[in-house]
Amino acid sequence: MPRNGEPARRRLQQAAVELFCERGYDQTTAAEIAARAGVTERTFFRHFPDKREVLFDGQAKLRELLTDAIARTPATLKPLETLYRAFRSVEKPLEDNRPFSFPRQQVIDRSPALQERELAKVAALAEALAQALRRRGVDERLAALAARTGMETFRHAVESWLADPAGGVGAHLDRAFDELHGLAASFSTRKTRHRQ
Amino acid sequence: MPRNGEPARRRLQQAAVELFCERGYDQTTAAEIAARAGVTERTFFRHFPDKREVLFDGQAKLRELLTDAIARTPATLKPLETLYRAFRSVEKPLEDNRPFSFPRQQVIDRSPALQERELAKVAALAEALAQALRRRGVDERLAALAARTGMETFRHAVESWLADPAGGVGAHLDRAFDELHGLAASFSTRKTRHRQ
Repeated sequence: MPRNGEPARRRLQQAAVELFCERGYDQTTAAEIAARAGVTERTFFRHFPDKREVLFDGQAKLRELLTDAIARTPATLKPLETLYRAFRSVEKPLEDNRPFSFPRQQVIDRSPALQERELAKVAALAEALAQALRRRGVDERLAALAARTGMETFRHAVESWLADPAGGVGAHLDRAFDELHGLAASFSTRKTRHRQ
Repeated sequence: MPRNGEPARRRLQQAAVELFCERGYDQTTAAEIAARAGVTERTFFRHFPDKREVLFDGQAKLRELLTDAIARTPATLKPLETLYRAFRSVEKPLEDNRPFSFPRQQVIDRSPALQERELAKVAALAEALAQALRRRGVDERLAALAARTGMETFRHAVESWLADPAGGVGAHLDRAFDELHGLAASFSTRKTRHRQ
């Protein structure tokens, strides 16, 4: 990685989503992205293995932030609140990243192949969250269910914030977790069995 | 579709998962699957566009059964209970399909490409469930969140039933939905704000 690599990396990411939006993902080459960012193609490939990974680069950082946050949460908190607090802790990086993540989502929405890639990354991130919960003593199975449903709630919040930034990502997270609470608090199979 | 096509189709599916387990997915050809099933290669391609689709063929039927069940559920039921009842209604086809779905899952677990395909199919199924809820008057956003978290709960139940069939898929569904209830009933951001 070159010295002062971070600014070049960010310029490459921004140039890439701009070009993907303007010309389409398939029609854009790594050389064109490098040219728009004012760096050489060689610099592009020092930062990213291919143009697809420009779009998914942030997920490793997000995973690290979230799993670290889970590890730091008071051990007395239950799994879903632990996840909620972890998601709230990445509010600032998400807001800072909006100029990239908004066009990024539009590019992904237009390509089934990129959508499949995105879903695979989301599933891997959910599994990392489950592992982080297990390290805090949460039961194996329950950790998986909490991480997957928590992850879907997070995605739901982020998508609704991308569509409408009002209130910030934190307000969308609160709303989504309260909606999940409303959906699940009113239903258990035991109640149903009693009623029948 | 030939007359009496269904038995041949089932034989092809069973032959395919057997061969994928024995030799590996990449090492198995459509011609070999047809030979094991006792039909011609032409018959294989009358039923399936390629060998990958043998594994995902059942998802269209599952989607139809689930969306029909949602449409038939009493309109007074809330979204998560509606989904739970739809999932319970496919218990028999799931049990009947276990001789295929068990080895199928093992094949998919060994291939990242098949896993990506599976995740895309699951996401499409969740979107179909969300649409079915919207047709019953559930709010646009809430339908998406209910369908995605309900779908993850269903997947969780099916995976745990594939690992351990005791009690049948119904018992695993009840357990997973009660676990979701336990996770989400105890946490809302309003409570958290009060506590702070």
